[in-house]
Amino acid sequence: MNMQEELATALSTVKEKSPLVHHLTNYVTVNDCANITIAIGASPVMADELTEVEEMVSIASALVLNIGTLNSRTIESMLAAGKKAKSLGIPVILDPVGVGATSLRTKVAKQIIDEVHPTVIRGNMSEIKVLAGLQVETKGVDSVASEENAENIAKKLATEWNCIVAITGKTDIVSDGKQVCQIDNGHRMLADVSGTGCMATSLIGSYCGANQDYLLATTAGIVSMALAGELAQQSLSPEEGIGTFKMRLLDSIYNLTPEGLAKGSKVTCE
Amino acid sequence: MNMQEELATALSTVKEKSPLVHHLTNYVTVNDCANITIAIGASPVMADELTEVEEMVSIASALVLNIGTLNSRTIESMLAAGKKAKSLGIPVILDPVGVGATSLRTKVAKQIIDEVHPTVIRGNMSEIKVLAGLQVETKGVDSVASEENAENIAKKLATEWNCIVAITGKTDIVSDGKQVCQIDNGHRMLADVSGTGCMATSLIGSYCGANQDYLLATTAGIVSMALAGELAQQSLSPEEGIGTFKMRLLDSIYNLTPEGLAKGSKVTCE
Amino acid sequence: MNMQEELATALSTVKEKSPLVHHLTNYVTVNDCANITIAIGASPVMADELTEVEEMVSIASALVLNIGTLNSRTIESMLAAGKKAKSLGIPVILDPVGVGATSLRTKVAKQIIDEVHPTVIRGNMSEIKVLAGLQVETKGVDSVASEENAENIAKKLATEWNCIVAITGKTDIVSDGKQVCQIDNGHRMLADVSGTGCMATSLIGSYCGANQDYLLATTAGIVSMALAGELAQQSLSPEEGIGTFKMRLLDSIYNLTPEGLAKGSKVTCE
Repeated sequence: MNMQEELATALSTVKEKSPLVHHLTNYVTVNDCANITIAIGASPVMADELTEVEEMVSIASALVLNIGTLNSRTIESMLAAGKKAKSLGIPVILDPVGVGATSLRTKVAKQIIDEVHPTVIRGNMSEIKVLAGLQVETKGVDSVASEENAENIAKKLATEWNCIVAITGKTDIVSDGKQVCQIDNGHRMLADVSGTGCMATSLIGSYCGANQDYLLATTAGIVSMALAGELAQQSLSPEEGIGTFKMRLLDSIYNLTPEGLAKGSKVTCE
Repeated sequence: MNMQEELATALSTVKEKSPLVHHLTNYVTVNDCANITIAIGASPVMADELTEVEEMVSIASALVLNIGTLNSRTIESMLAAGKKAKSLGIPVILDPVGVGATSLRTKVAKQIIDEVHPTVIRGNMSEIKVLAGLQVETKGVDSVASEENAENIAKKLATEWNCIVAITGKTDIVSDGKQVCQIDNGHRMLADVSGTGCMATSLIGSYCGANQDYLLATTAGIVSMALAGELAQQSLSPEEGIGTFKMRLLDSIYNLTPEGLAKGSKVTCE
Repeated sequence: MNMQEELATALSTVKEKSPLVHHLTNYVTVNDCANITIAIGASPVMADELTEVEEMVSIASALVLNIGTLNSRTIESMLAAGKKAKSLGIPVILDPVGVGATSLRTKVAKQIIDEVHPTVIRGNMSEIKVLAGLQVETKGVDSVASEENAENIAKKLATEWNCIVAITGKTDIVSDGKQVCQIDNGHRMLADVSGTGCMATSLIGSYCGANQDYLLATTAGIVSMALAGELAQQSLSPEEGIGTFKMRLLDSIYNLTPEGLAKGSKVTCE
């Protein structure tokens, strides 16, 4: 199969299996994460209480850890859920939101990497550079780092951490340490809506919950989000803005077919 | 009055009294719960700090307890708010989200039933079966249980717990232990949006805050949500999906008139 | 410059500087606050863990404290973040949501005023009257107080607390204790959407993060929200309601130009 066929199959498999995706995520974008998970064909569950997360993740097919509004209570829950998931062979997707903005975020993201060993890490360039120990300016949860050299950084970190690393930005990069995939879908308006990064991570979780090829699953999640951004933007009339755009993102994912994904995707792997 | 006239009157009364509905609910769908409460004509307030919930519920006309993202802190607050409400004669509506998925949820839902004695319990078939002690498969917060025999289960549990039991699904069932109402409104797309169950519970809270006939109020809440689902779905063009659908749900509730509710309702009670 | 030119310049400056606005806010409307902050041209970050808020606010240009769903943990974080911000000369905007509804809210709002000395306080008439120690009826988080005498109350409190006081309602009033500005923009439908008050506060935070004239910045934030309400309402067809209206609010802010703001504003200061 070529990449387009593989993406189509990956989406069909999500719709067929409807994997349960357990989220420990932030309260800012959690509703969008839940709805986009349903829209792609998976099933979301949000639970963050320490005394139930291990049991909840045991019935799930993927786990999303998003540190966007972490606190001392949920940090413990994330570590417990993450370790349990890994012990059961359930893929763990880490979204290190705002890492570098505070030392707490940097410490916690590194602790999750060290103790949980996530299956996939998705961040923007600022966040990934911080995790890589590179010098970087940060501005809250938005990336201000140069995207130069993203392929090498993704490849190096994927090897070092033995996981999939995805760097999203103008061009998106995904690597498992050997292959590097470059995604040229997307629209700059995606950066104007809160939570498009978090939603991409939820989509990755949805694909990983149904597909064992995690490089493909991660790529499929990012392509889906980026393509939805293109479609949503194209549908806008001049007086419409990010309110309508955000609604259309959900519509586009809901109506995305395996054929549409294959046809619209702009991915090259080498 | 026949059922249609009663439903119309129940909605008029909500709009006339604009009852304050205190919610202790999950952070996934809380915004939709707030907006749908306003849309129907009531007034939402969300507060979950132990040291204020008893005071807050004292000025409210109904209390919604939704365990979707429960934690040790909010469990205490739910119990305190629930007991205070009942001591003041304020109706309490329990939404046992995801009960059965973890033992914590099952324990807490049963504790609320035992200690608070909710006025209304609304869940999907999986959730209600778990509460009834029946064997059931669960998958996170979504129902996978057969809807066979729902009338008998609702009736039996309503008698046992001395409350209104509502089981929502393809067909919705409401019982007070004597009468059983069956609601044939709705559209399967309602299951594709996160929080339509929670929103139905908020609508029940809104109706119960303004109407003393809780069997009617619960039925009216569920009919309103289900009818909004029909109207929202009918308005969609082919390229629209759950983003637009969710927005139209709010529009439909906002524009729902007593006459429209009566005319669109498909309810039989016996 | 006249007021219209000043408003236009204030908006240009937000778009040029894109200030980081740190929010400690409620989980009901947080997503709308994040998106409206982006829509106006600023950058939101939400973080409420005690061990990171001082570091986070240090890289921010404004701090929003919104007590809508306060709890014992986040109260401590609000006080710490607020004091740190003030020590660094970063403007602090307080939204005392639901103050008066419970004694906890009243105590905490007063504590924030006493210990943090906010730069701006924005509330509805009920909330501001409670803070002023006046007799007032409250109903959850909605205002039921008469708007008579708002100019005098705003002016008096602004002097007493040495800050900007904004009272939003049918007519909006902003004062620094000397000048009083009256804003006649808006539409009553704004009261039918949860979080329009919170969003106005986020807009004030966005303007204050980029403009040093806080009376102007506060006025600009309120005018922007109110004008967006007018534009959103005008765009509605009869079958549309608060779902569509809320989406269009975001669209309107996203497409608001300095010229459009100047032209649409109805502000008189004296």
